[in-house]
Amino acid sequence: MGKRPLLLLVCIFCWTTYSHSQQITWEMVEPGIWKGTVGTPEEFDLLKAADVTPRSGALAKMTPVNFPLDQEQIVAILNDRKTYLRFPLERGEQLFGFGLNFKTVYQRGSIKRLHVDHYGGSDNGRTHAPVPFYLSSLGYGVLINSARYLDVYAGSSARKDSPDAPEALDRNTDENWTSSPYSDAVEILVPAEGVEIYLFAGPTPLEAVRRYNLFQGGGPLPPRWGLGFTQRVHRLYTSEDVLSEVAAFEERGFPLDFIGLEPGWQSKSYPNTFEWDLGRFPDPLQFTKELLEKGVRINLWVNPYVSPDAGIYQKILPYTASHTVWAGVVPDLSIPAAQKIFWQPFRDDHVGIGVSGYKIDEVDGYDRWLWPDVARFPSGLSAEQMRQAYGLFVKKQSTALFREKNLRTYGLVRASNAGGTSFPYVLYNDYYDHRDFITALINSGFSGLLWTPEARASKTAEEWLRRMQTVIFSPMAMINAWASGTKPWSFPEVEQQVKEMAALRMRMMPYWYTSFALYHFEGIPPFRAMNLEEGFNDISLKNQAGSADLETNPYEEAVRKEVKDQFMAGPFLLVAPVFAGETSRKVILPKGNWYDFYNGQYVGNGEVIEVQAALDKIPVYVRDGGIIPMMAPRLHAPGLNEKTDLEIRHYGTQAGTFYLYDDDGITYDYEKGDFSWREINVETDRNGNLTGKIAKPEKGKPDTIGEITWKFMTDQP
Amino acid sequence: MGKRPLLLLVCIFCWTTYSHSQQITWEMVEPGIWKGTVGTPEEFDLLKAADVTPRSGALAKMTPVNFPLDQEQIVAILNDRKTYLRFPLERGEQLFGFGLNFKTVYQRGSIKRLHVDHYGGSDNGRTHAPVPFYLSSLGYGVLINSARYLDVYAGSSARKDSPDAPEALDRNTDENWTSSPYSDAVEILVPAEGVEIYLFAGPTPLEAVRRYNLFQGGGPLPPRWGLGFTQRVHRLYTSEDVLSEVAAFEERGFPLDFIGLEPGWQSKSYPNTFEWDLGRFPDPLQFTKELLEKGVRINLWVNPYVSPDAGIYQKILPYTASHTVWAGVVPDLSIPAAQKIFWQPFRDDHVGIGVSGYKIDEVDGYDRWLWPDVARFPSGLSAEQMRQAYGLFVKKQSTALFREKNLRTYGLVRASNAGGTSFPYVLYNDYYDHRDFITALINSGFSGLLWTPEARASKTAEEWLRRMQTVIFSPMAMINAWASGTKPWSFPEVEQQVKEMAALRMRMMPYWYTSFALYHFEGIPPFRAMNLEEGFNDISLKNQAGSADLETNPYEEAVRKEVKDQFMAGPFLLVAPVFAGETSRKVILPKGNWYDFYNGQYVGNGEVIEVQAALDKIPVYVRDGGIIPMMAPRLHAPGLNEKTDLEIRHYGTQAGTFYLYDDDGITYDYEKGDFSWREINVETDRNGNLTGKIAKPEKGKPDTIGEITWKFMTDQP
Repeated sequence: MGKRPLLLLVCIFCWTTYSHSQQITWEMVEPGIWKGTVGTPEEFDLLKAADVTPRSGALAKMTPVNFPLDQEQIVAILNDRKTYLRFPLERGEQLFGFGLNFKTVYQRGSIKRLHVDHYGGSDNGRTHAPVPFYLSSLGYGVLINSARYLDVYAGSSARKDSPDAPEALDRNTDENWTSSPYSDAVEILVPAEGVEIYLFAGPTPLEAVRRYNLFQGGGPLPPRWGLGFTQRVHRLYTSEDVLSEVAAFEERGFPLDFIGLEPGWQSKSYPNTFEWDLGRFPDPLQFTKELLEKGVRINLWVNPYVSPDAGIYQKILPYTASHTVWAGVVPDLSIPAAQKIFWQPFRDDHVGIGVSGYKIDEVDGYDRWLWPDVARFPSGLSAEQMRQAYGLFVKKQSTALFREKNLRTYGLVRASNAGGTSFPYVLYNDYYDHRDFITALINSGFSGLLWTPEARASKTAEEWLRRMQTVIFSPMAMINAWASGTKPWSFPEVEQQVKEMAALRMRMMPYWYTSFALYHFEGIPPFRAMNLEEGFNDISLKNQAGSADLETNPYEEAVRKEVKDQFMAGPFLLVAPVFAGETSRKVILPKGNWYDFYNGQYVGNGEVIEVQAALDKIPVYVRDGGIIPMMAPRLHAPGLNEKTDLEIRHYGTQAGTFYLYDDDGITYDYEKGDFSWREINVETDRNGNLTGKIAKPEKGKPDTIGEITWKFMTDQP
Repeated sequence: MGKRPLLLLVCIFCWTTYSHSQQITWEMVEPGIWKGTVGTPEEFDLLKAADVTPRSGALAKMTPVNFPLDQEQIVAILNDRKTYLRFPLERGEQLFGFGLNFKTVYQRGSIKRLHVDHYGGSDNGRTHAPVPFYLSSLGYGVLINSARYLDVYAGSSARKDSPDAPEALDRNTDENWTSSPYSDAVEILVPAEGVEIYLFAGPTPLEAVRRYNLFQGGGPLPPRWGLGFTQRVHRLYTSEDVLSEVAAFEERGFPLDFIGLEPGWQSKSYPNTFEWDLGRFPDPLQFTKELLEKGVRINLWVNPYVSPDAGIYQKILPYTASHTVWAGVVPDLSIPAAQKIFWQPFRDDHVGIGVSGYKIDEVDGYDRWLWPDVARFPSGLSAEQMRQAYGLFVKKQSTALFREKNLRTYGLVRASNAGGTSFPYVLYNDYYDHRDFITALINSGFSGLLWTPEARASKTAEEWLRRMQTVIFSPMAMINAWASGTKPWSFPEVEQQVKEMAALRMRMMPYWYTSFALYHFEGIPPFRAMNLEEGFNDISLKNQAGSADLETNPYEEAVRKEVKDQFMAGPFLLVAPVFAGETSRKVILPKGNWYDFYNGQYVGNGEVIEVQAALDKIPVYVRDGGIIPMMAPRLHAPGLNEKTDLEIRHYGTQAGTFYLYDDDGITYDYEKGDFSWREINVETDRNGNLTGKIAKPEKGKPDTIGEITWKFMTDQP
């Protein structure tokens, strides 16, 4: 015992030398949003890369809240030239987010290295958008604003000195022994000597997500055509081939709003010239014009790697990385002069002649293809920082080309990150598991992302139809079947059903458009997890350790489990995809009455229902009082300020209110106030019958609404 | 054109600010070994963690060589607080190494993050021994002496300014387009502002490996018993159960040299007390003694995580990490005071009573179990450095316990790294693919590692026998079937064949012992890839791009391919494992005559042979002139200085020379010179008959060789 004091001295000495606990300076930057500064944050970070103005007005209107955590429990330590961050976790708390995950919704217990990359089949942080933001079921969110690879221990690490440290158990004989002892913290390693943290209050998880989105400028508002149908054609198609494909869609009565050209539109690709191949496309201007006249827009595939044969090659060369990608030079898009050179052909030869958007490929990884981490860039940014931010650069800078023309765009990109919410791009990849595509769609809503579960190919007609059914309930209704050559009508036995689904997508456009307006103006993700619905988490996360109720209450058991196969779409819809091989499925209905989307019949309330999944229908349910504005089926989205008649549907027995968003559908004039929210009310009249009314358009505001038909889907009791 | 000068100025400015090219100071530290110093290397590194003296005497006797690369082509740059290293590659050059890889032998083109971890199924650098050493087919090796996670681009990155940069091709139409353009360099990112590099000359690849091994003190020389048979028993076995198991081996005539006790020998495990469970083991001293009298030694499973119930807990507590593993504290084994406390129960209660070795588990990962990278250690070493070096610490420090008693040990460990070659430990893991186990065995020889393809369980008798056949041709002949309960005789239909294999292992002990002596004294890996055999790479790597010969010369085609399923064992043997389900296989024989190990018949010369793989035999071939010393089958290895009779086999028609190593078999006295190499010569006498002779033992040196029988396996022409 005599030696112990000496040892303790050593210990105290050790701890003081190796734990440089840092003051975190907290500052409220918007209502309900606090910035914490630790040490000396790096000059470059994700929010600087995105450089977006928060929607302060919308934030100011949200529920007033206090700092949502105990500040004493948020700890920062500088050690080993890195910043160690720690955030508290409570028992029963669940975590969501960290970007585009494909297999998991619950993130508590996960370990990730957040690293922009092609998704490789494991939710380990290597993904197209490994957003350093997590959301708590207790209704707050945390963003680490760093463009570095971050190591995240999301409730997996146990500290010796924790007040809630796990107890040591004897594995030899103790049945309660676990290989993953309880962890009471999220710990994050930032490889820099300082960092900015942002804390987003709720009070609900959805409100925390809304603050996160609004802080980044809100979601994008696509042009109406962006919510229509899109198809991508074979990489070596000529303009003639494209026109034939467009004609085939028209003839067969399949909707088509934009058509994507793959690499062969360019004179050379991988690396790229960004110049039209005049063999395959002899008159790009005429070609684009002809398509536009048919109501079809052009989306161009590109990746940013510049061919020595590109006109801009010599000019861009000084602004490119030390390393090449497919022997193309990599522009340092953090440098304004490089941006100017790089985007010039896009401005002049694409957007300038009517091209409507891009599919920006291979800005994600994977390692074998992208620039290595040993690459250096003229700006002095590291390869790592470039990797984390490049998706933001291409999204922001390409969007600007369209903004210059006061035209909205809506495109595809393979990488994003925190800060990128407001840019009108949808993520996609080469992975193709249908179930995991839906899990990704669910996860996208936690992190300010949009994701398309595109259809590329299918082994069977059944799979093709099932995939198309989920495609139409997603941010971008895309067939990307250029490699397989699959057309919407390639499986004749389901051609009619696919066509009906495509028509449904078009008919629902007013609903989708308002859902995106809510994303833009209010920060509400148009596609989102059940966990963001009020009342869902309360049930699912109470009493994690299990309860005696479980056997008697299968509903509580169901919602406590990770829900990866049903999601919310817009304000009122619950979508429950069916996968090839299934003939029925379980659907978990939140509390409140729910109604079948197709026939208005009551299906349940706060319960697990078993649904017979007829091949021609994807199960969709509407919340009581839900109002769904629809239009007549059409092959192309309405044009600038084009008026369309509406069928306004009401579901259930409750009165309902809905604000229908309206603007010209094409330009950025809504940013100058040229938009309206038309209040729709459904009430029960003195005879007990439902009646609907819609507010008149505000004077001087856009009005694209024609005749209105009311449809009360549910028989009243 | 007028703007170009300005742009170039910008460019030059950029390059000078972001490329801080560093002088590398080269110094020859041993014959044929150069140390390069870049910037300010960190104080802690792998070689310091291992702290081993090079075998300078052996190195001095090797072929004199010059610096094997053009120094100008080895480039170091400090950027982003990291060191960027670049080493040249020639066309046709192949790379090997980077530690324990399970699926690949050729490493050129690979991208890895070297990170000590449980092997997760992909050769991405996360493995039990991600050694930062690579070997070139051109006959040199490179070691990066850093205890950090290193990002390696082993011939996958292409630089804009490379003189051998790949040409841009048009993917639209050019059939020669490749997604992996040619790379002329190995590039490595070291997250520190300086590092030590070691360059090992050849001139052959094997000589470069030998220098690498000798620089680390040479391979370990196990005690003779370490090369016998070992079995591990159920975690909750009592001393009675163990004695029964030992008796069963004896009764059934299966050899057994050491028996492994799993966690339940301790009073508590996961975390551990390191104290005997007196319920299951009431008298450890008597138990150990009783076993030793039967010729069976005890190996104890441990992991280093200390239970609050351990006697050393309070004392070690000040020297432990901030985070716990399974609620056990993690000793900072870089601190001498911590070492003293931690190893005391091992010294007193295990080694002190006759325990012969350890199986040191869970010092590798994986992330979910180990301390997180946010853990801090009292020494100030980072969690990352600890992760990379912990295997070295436990190997070195546990070996010292035995050295104190002048007894050799031979144990199991789950992690190692550069610097660890000389410690008497064999790597193992939980992965269980039989083919990949053999690939790992092949790879282990490139990086100074030992690996056991242990048998744990099998679905069929055939698989069990096939696995046992590879077990006996490996550094540790182990059955680790405690969880499955499989015994060597569990499949009655192959019991006899398994027994014969086990007997063969024992009979070959003199050959294995000398093979390990060659590892220790000469640095020659006892188990190694075909690529280390002279003449093999010359053929395999010439003209990588393919040759017209391929169709007419299937041999050249075969050796050009990655060979992952046959290997060299000791000086003369080529082993070609057969896997369950196979009835025949191809074997690639290097140039020179080769003979069947079992019957001495000629099988081929520089060709690919098809072998019918009878179930009871693993194909093994002997080089012309090969001399294999064998002893009579026995159940336990010879004891201290115990004399054994030898059967010395000769294969083929050439005269042969072999130096048979001899010492007391148990102690470290060989380090004081108490060993001998007995020259064996086989020559053709005047009648054309082969005769053998063996040199007399040197006076005063150990002599354990009894009667000698000569056996000429091949009929002479």
